[in-house]
Amino acid sequence: MFRLLALVVFLVWTSTAAAAQSKSLAIVGATIIDGTARAPIRDGVILVEGQRIVSIGARSDIDIPGAAQLIDVTGKYAIPGIMDANVHLFFDATPEGLLRFEGRYEEAIIEAAQISLKSGVTTVFDSWGPRQPLVNVKSAINSGAVVGSRIYLAGNIVGMNGPISVDFDSSAVDYLSKAFVDRTNDLWVQGVGRELLWQTPEAIRSKIGAYLKKDVDFIKYASSGHGSDTMEFVAFSPDQQRAIVDAARSAGATVQAHTTSVESLKIAVNAGVNLVQHCEITGPTPIPETTLQLMAASKTACAALPYTKQRLDFEREQMSGIDFFLARLPVAEENIRNMIAHDVMFVLATDSGLLSVETKSRSPVLSGEERLSELGKGHVFWMKAMHQKGMPAMDILKAATGNVARAYKVDGELGTLEPGKIADIVVLDESPLSKIENVAKVHMVIKEGRVIDLAALPLNPVLSDGAASKSN
Amino acid sequence: MFRLLALVVFLVWTSTAAAAQSKSLAIVGATIIDGTARAPIRDGVILVEGQRIVSIGARSDIDIPGAAQLIDVTGKYAIPGIMDANVHLFFDATPEGLLRFEGRYEEAIIEAAQISLKSGVTTVFDSWGPRQPLVNVKSAINSGAVVGSRIYLAGNIVGMNGPISVDFDSSAVDYLSKAFVDRTNDLWVQGVGRELLWQTPEAIRSKIGAYLKKDVDFIKYASSGHGSDTMEFVAFSPDQQRAIVDAARSAGATVQAHTTSVESLKIAVNAGVNLVQHCEITGPTPIPETTLQLMAASKTACAALPYTKQRLDFEREQMSGIDFFLARLPVAEENIRNMIAHDVMFVLATDSGLLSVETKSRSPVLSGEERLSELGKGHVFWMKAMHQKGMPAMDILKAATGNVARAYKVDGELGTLEPGKIADIVVLDESPLSKIENVAKVHMVIKEGRVIDLAALPLNPVLSDGAASKSN
Amino acid sequence: MFRLLALVVFLVWTSTAAAAQSKSLAIVGATIIDGTARAPIRDGVILVEGQRIVSIGARSDIDIPGAAQLIDVTGKYAIPGIMDANVHLFFDATPEGLLRFEGRYEEAIIEAAQISLKSGVTTVFDSWGPRQPLVNVKSAINSGAVVGSRIYLAGNIVGMNGPISVDFDSSAVDYLSKAFVDRTNDLWVQGVGRELLWQTPEAIRSKIGAYLKKDVDFIKYASSGHGSDTMEFVAFSPDQQRAIVDAARSAGATVQAHTTSVESLKIAVNAGVNLVQHCEITGPTPIPETTLQLMAASKTACAALPYTKQRLDFEREQMSGIDFFLARLPVAEENIRNMIAHDVMFVLATDSGLLSVETKSRSPVLSGEERLSELGKGHVFWMKAMHQKGMPAMDILKAATGNVARAYKVDGELGTLEPGKIADIVVLDESPLSKIENVAKVHMVIKEGRVIDLAALPLNPVLSDGAASKSN
Amino acid sequence: MFRLLALVVFLVWTSTAAAAQSKSLAIVGATIIDGTARAPIRDGVILVEGQRIVSIGARSDIDIPGAAQLIDVTGKYAIPGIMDANVHLFFDATPEGLLRFEGRYEEAIIEAAQISLKSGVTTVFDSWGPRQPLVNVKSAINSGAVVGSRIYLAGNIVGMNGPISVDFDSSAVDYLSKAFVDRTNDLWVQGVGRELLWQTPEAIRSKIGAYLKKDVDFIKYASSGHGSDTMEFVAFSPDQQRAIVDAARSAGATVQAHTTSVESLKIAVNAGVNLVQHCEITGPTPIPETTLQLMAASKTACAALPYTKQRLDFEREQMSGIDFFLARLPVAEENIRNMIAHDVMFVLATDSGLLSVETKSRSPVLSGEERLSELGKGHVFWMKAMHQKGMPAMDILKAATGNVARAYKVDGELGTLEPGKIADIVVLDESPLSKIENVAKVHMVIKEGRVIDLAALPLNPVLSDGAASKSN
Repeated sequence: MFRLLALVVFLVWTSTAAAAQSKSLAIVGATIIDGTARAPIRDGVILVEGQRIVSIGARSDIDIPGAAQLIDVTGKYAIPGIMDANVHLFFDATPEGLLRFEGRYEEAIIEAAQISLKSGVTTVFDSWGPRQPLVNVKSAINSGAVVGSRIYLAGNIVGMNGPISVDFDSSAVDYLSKAFVDRTNDLWVQGVGRELLWQTPEAIRSKIGAYLKKDVDFIKYASSGHGSDTMEFVAFSPDQQRAIVDAARSAGATVQAHTTSVESLKIAVNAGVNLVQHCEITGPTPIPETTLQLMAASKTACAALPYTKQRLDFEREQMSGIDFFLARLPVAEENIRNMIAHDVMFVLATDSGLLSVETKSRSPVLSGEERLSELGKGHVFWMKAMHQKGMPAMDILKAATGNVARAYKVDGELGTLEPGKIADIVVLDESPLSKIENVAKVHMVIKEGRVIDLAALPLNPVLSDGAASKSN
Repeated sequence: MFRLLALVVFLVWTSTAAAAQSKSLAIVGATIIDGTARAPIRDGVILVEGQRIVSIGARSDIDIPGAAQLIDVTGKYAIPGIMDANVHLFFDATPEGLLRFEGRYEEAIIEAAQISLKSGVTTVFDSWGPRQPLVNVKSAINSGAVVGSRIYLAGNIVGMNGPISVDFDSSAVDYLSKAFVDRTNDLWVQGVGRELLWQTPEAIRSKIGAYLKKDVDFIKYASSGHGSDTMEFVAFSPDQQRAIVDAARSAGATVQAHTTSVESLKIAVNAGVNLVQHCEITGPTPIPETTLQLMAASKTACAALPYTKQRLDFEREQMSGIDFFLARLPVAEENIRNMIAHDVMFVLATDSGLLSVETKSRSPVLSGEERLSELGKGHVFWMKAMHQKGMPAMDILKAATGNVARAYKVDGELGTLEPGKIADIVVLDESPLSKIENVAKVHMVIKEGRVIDLAALPLNPVLSDGAASKSN
Repeated sequence: MFRLLALVVFLVWTSTAAAAQSKSLAIVGATIIDGTARAPIRDGVILVEGQRIVSIGARSDIDIPGAAQLIDVTGKYAIPGIMDANVHLFFDATPEGLLRFEGRYEEAIIEAAQISLKSGVTTVFDSWGPRQPLVNVKSAINSGAVVGSRIYLAGNIVGMNGPISVDFDSSAVDYLSKAFVDRTNDLWVQGVGRELLWQTPEAIRSKIGAYLKKDVDFIKYASSGHGSDTMEFVAFSPDQQRAIVDAARSAGATVQAHTTSVESLKIAVNAGVNLVQHCEITGPTPIPETTLQLMAASKTACAALPYTKQRLDFEREQMSGIDFFLARLPVAEENIRNMIAHDVMFVLATDSGLLSVETKSRSPVLSGEERLSELGKGHVFWMKAMHQKGMPAMDILKAATGNVARAYKVDGELGTLEPGKIADIVVLDESPLSKIENVAKVHMVIKEGRVIDLAALPLNPVLSDGAASKSN
Repeated sequence: MFRLLALVVFLVWTSTAAAAQSKSLAIVGATIIDGTARAPIRDGVILVEGQRIVSIGARSDIDIPGAAQLIDVTGKYAIPGIMDANVHLFFDATPEGLLRFEGRYEEAIIEAAQISLKSGVTTVFDSWGPRQPLVNVKSAINSGAVVGSRIYLAGNIVGMNGPISVDFDSSAVDYLSKAFVDRTNDLWVQGVGRELLWQTPEAIRSKIGAYLKKDVDFIKYASSGHGSDTMEFVAFSPDQQRAIVDAARSAGATVQAHTTSVESLKIAVNAGVNLVQHCEITGPTPIPETTLQLMAASKTACAALPYTKQRLDFEREQMSGIDFFLARLPVAEENIRNMIAHDVMFVLATDSGLLSVETKSRSPVLSGEERLSELGKGHVFWMKAMHQKGMPAMDILKAATGNVARAYKVDGELGTLEPGKIADIVVLDESPLSKIENVAKVHMVIKEGRVIDLAALPLNPVLSDGAASKSN
């Protein structure tokens, strides 16, 4: 079924995108915030040839070729394409979502990649999802056949079982057929699930090596448990974690850890991971000073999930009465402030994806204002929240672009607006430096030198706007 | 989505069926068992014009028009199209099945109608299912656009709630969104659910009237509870049942009852129903003599669900240890024997439908040999079982044709092979009178005067042969 | 263990009660409201010999024997001992309560009977409980060995299964051993459970006869289902109900029905029951005029469960969002008003019992103000509620005394203050006719001619005041 | 309630035990296997003064004082009192068991301590149970007021939550009141539950110090998870484990770990624990050679739970179809054989306790032959199993006596029959060296110099022999 649908999608892409494509492109007149240490360039020009930037500078300094297509964005603001270090392009991993999309996950993933791109996030790092469908969509996008954010993917969280397991949600397992549960979980697990926790470091090393040959781009592993009842446990032991990091390094892949406690965080940083997901979550215990220093010194990227003040109030209200949860909110806040103070390297990460209206209706926490995990908007809430916690706007923009590129070791190609880099450019109506939430005011998105027809996205909604229920 | 798929199906039908159609048809050479009191006609001829039989008799007595298409079935056996008084064309009403087919129930229903037709069952009475999708498929079949068994439908069992309720299976309700549960249940309930049990006879009468305007063909109501915990309860009171029967009669519809106990059976027969589904099920108490006499005198049709000896042994083994279940098996057997002895009018009824391999895997009871509820085969097991219980083959054939037509008051058109009747004819390779299981040896099926291309059915399998899982 | 504890209790009783006992007793000075049509007697005298009233009248009309013990209650108000037509002396039938009291239900029952007596309720009709423990306590009270309200008991609700079943609460059944569940349920069911619903009227008649030989005082049967999913079903059919009523009548026992819908109510009244429990509950449909007339004409006692205004507001708030529940509240109110208008005979009934603090903490509905089901207070809320609905105070007092006696056919001995009747007398500090809630101001309780030492009750609390948790 | 019952028990003890007590005791004629390296002494004499052994040797070498009470056990076999390194004197921690014994756990614990003593196990190390009730019974036994095995106790498994939690069994939690669940769990947790997993090593150190002041004798902590879904996780991190071991050492207490995987085992041994519970359980991965060597070199005691051949067959049959379980059985077997080959120090440990008949009926695994966890018999199955795996009888006896004493650092007082040691002596009818199962043939048990009246034990059964259900 995927092939058929993809075909439909391809045709649409071709028709909508072709007009916008051109060999040489001159984006003229914007204030350019290039994501480097350089000061913003007022009335600048970005010259693009094919997929790459060839020159950049003040209008007076740049010689625009006659053949170039001129794009006048005078008075606007150009920033590098935004990069999200933590998304889940297939997110509705509920029994309903999994059954509804069985055999056609790609439809949901394409929709997510298009909503993401439309919001100015040109690159996403999918840190948990069904491997093969993600690979399928990634390939289709990379080949130009499908439009959407550029995808890098981890597949499974190494050491954890699939979506219908105690590591995520196994409550419905008795009401589903074993055949469905098994084949669904296997789409995620792919041979690197819980079974690895039992094994010796040596055995794990070889499993990681094999897994990296399956078209995954980076490794994410469990330093702590993921299910709500196991967050305080250490998943892989220190020796096992070192083996995982070594195996990924040897294969040239970056490696990151899921951590949810002070000990699992410390162990992961000591093991040498490139990035720590939701580094601010350490339950009721703040990150000790020694660990903060370690994180800063090692330049481990911290993919924090900060609440805006508004969301914090909402969560407090929703969780009123759940003492252990309320006790943890101020610790996470404290951790973020301490990490800012220690110059820990932050990266934008939203843990976001699309949810059906059915799933959203199951808990107020899945809706509510300024929800970080709302794909297409979460990155704005991230920036707003970090600004509220004291991070300067320029640092926030770097956290959302160059820092992510560095953490994932793709900074040779992405993350800044510089000659030679891939031309992922977001043009905003108003300055993000005067008000960081202005990143939401997207005027234009250019990906790999092509202007995206934002109004057309998503081309074939199957989840957003209640698409699932409307089909009935 | 239905429209698109239906279109595909239409095209296939047109191409496969067109060649077989003809204005005048002469089926020549078979022994004709016409379903009436008449003795079989050896070397007979059935002459069909358009959709109807025009004459029937020994070859020597019939003048075959020159323009007629000759179909030589010498040595075969022709019987009326089989009629099943109780099927469920959408049967896989599990959480998985309901989610998988949401928005496209028609695909599953068409497949079932085609598998049914292929087995020689030219007319089915769907006594519980999603109303609108069934109406859609019925219309498509009636219009000739889709091939399949002729459908008459009840929609809901009046007085019961939908498939995701305590009346059927509510165990998964906490794991499904309320929106999905509500809209799914509503496809079945359609305003005539449990809420009616609370109401006065007068109020119910008017609800039935309104429901009969929704393209349903007959009324099935709950004289007893349907869920496993309510089978011993009376659902509608005697006064309420009389109101339902009156309302249906006034609208010209037949009416039938779901009964599962001696009291609910007696009340329904007294209320004047045309048919009683699974009349043999009365829990641990055999039907009393007075009720047996009443059923016979009133000519209420009994749609019993008999086990063959082989199946009975299988069920006994599966249920070993479940004392209350084992205690009820011999009562059901005793009831059937007693009803045969009292000349109660039996009709073929299988309570059958298609199940996905996933659903079948959930319980051995859903598979196993000689399962009455296996669509396409169940009617043969019914006949075999009744024969084992002492019913003569000719009576069994009538129970599977003319009796059903009479119970549903369509005997003016269907149920026998007689001039003026619709030309639904099944040609068997061997005589069903010498061995009743020979009804399974279908040589040819003619429906409304058209020869069906049996080999092509089902055209688009989505359930049988593990179609659901294969799509992944 | 019961024997040991009972022994302790006996001793206490002997010591506390002996002093208060006397051969001849003269209660002098109260305004006597005798529960008959007679006007209140100011400055009256009630003369008691042994357990019975020998004369009653104005002080000037009564000759008080010299040997009589004089009890001066000048300025107080004497009414007949209150009679509650529906209590459950063992009420905490949760998994916790059932496990905690296994083998010693009598302790909880004695406590309830003593709290009841202390509140002026001298006679209770226990309409659902563990038969043998109730019989044990009843015998101990009747013999004078234990102090407490006089008990009449039904044991099981005929046709329903035990406390750990779908008819009550089966949710914990998987977490309990089958042995415990079976032996606990059997304490209630005693051979007259759901199994009877399957049977013919004739078979049921004989089962009722056998059950009545087991020391039960009256029959309560299910005209409708009891579990929340079966309230709209008819339990016993009309024919079965008639058989039950006949069997009880033949044995000289009164018979009552559990009904929760308009049809089950009508069927029960037609079957000839003496009393209908919670007659006002008919779901979303008000009782039709014809049934109201039938109830009045047949003098069937109606044991309504009215809410006070305060409680009604509380329930509305608690149930906000539960539409079907809210829809039923006004119907119940309307039913009560209509029954008052039709002169249906009401009887005091509280459906009350003791709950542990643990059980109360499970739902706000189990606490909250003016809860009818709070043993020891519920009868006052009943009276307050009926007064709010327009019933005159004198009628309310009769509903709480003589009407109950009549409904249960014990009006030869109980229910009014008249010579020859048993001397159950409650002396109130203030007039119940000026304000009905004054029945809560109990000055003295005399049962069978003995003054009860109210301050000492309950002698051995095991449930009230959190006794269960304190023991740990 | 405990006080009252204990009183009853004390009186019984006084009457039954008084006669058997004596100042000086000479046990004469047995073959003495003293638990040291010394060869068995045939026709030996053990001279006891008060609670201690004063001399031991061949009859010819020992001068028996005239005042000594002579106990002739000619032809019998005397061994040191057996010591079990892992029991649970309150074991029936099911919802039913916890509710039944709330407020009177001591009754169940005393019964277990008496059944244990009766079987020749004079000392038990209770590694998980309700702290205060265990302390109560331990004190009563130590003071001589109650007879039973000598108790050392750990209370909680540090890092795990209580019996009604995911670490044990939380499945019934929705069916119990929060008050009951909380107060029950707290009896176990006592401030050292899961909350500690979140904390820094420093914080944990201080919590352990505080816990050790609560009358617990040794520390058992979770190196891996305990619940079935967390066995492959590391519970306390290496740094946390070192802090726990240090804290216990500083307080003079021994410390042991719960481990269930190769990594948690390695971490615990490296942290310096004295003992590892169920050291043979490492899921699907055998203990690596390096860890085996480490265990042997560090003399860490291994409290393995071996299956006899008969039990192994039984478990295989019960678990047929549960692949992951079957895969782990041979690994555990392999681990034990490898540890024997590496001269790892084994100690007798049964993980045993008493279960009600109700609990046993819930799963065949809780009964079946040669069940190690059957208190009073399990130690014999342990010995039989180890013998089947190749351990010599004399080594087995040491594992069941001196090794346990050494692991728990009580070898100055217990574990061998030597002058100066406490006189815990078991006299067997037949030689355990010729057949190790002969330890079941207990002729006499002497504890602290007193002959136990074995026939009287248990004095007040509340669990064994279906006592719980009989009380109803």
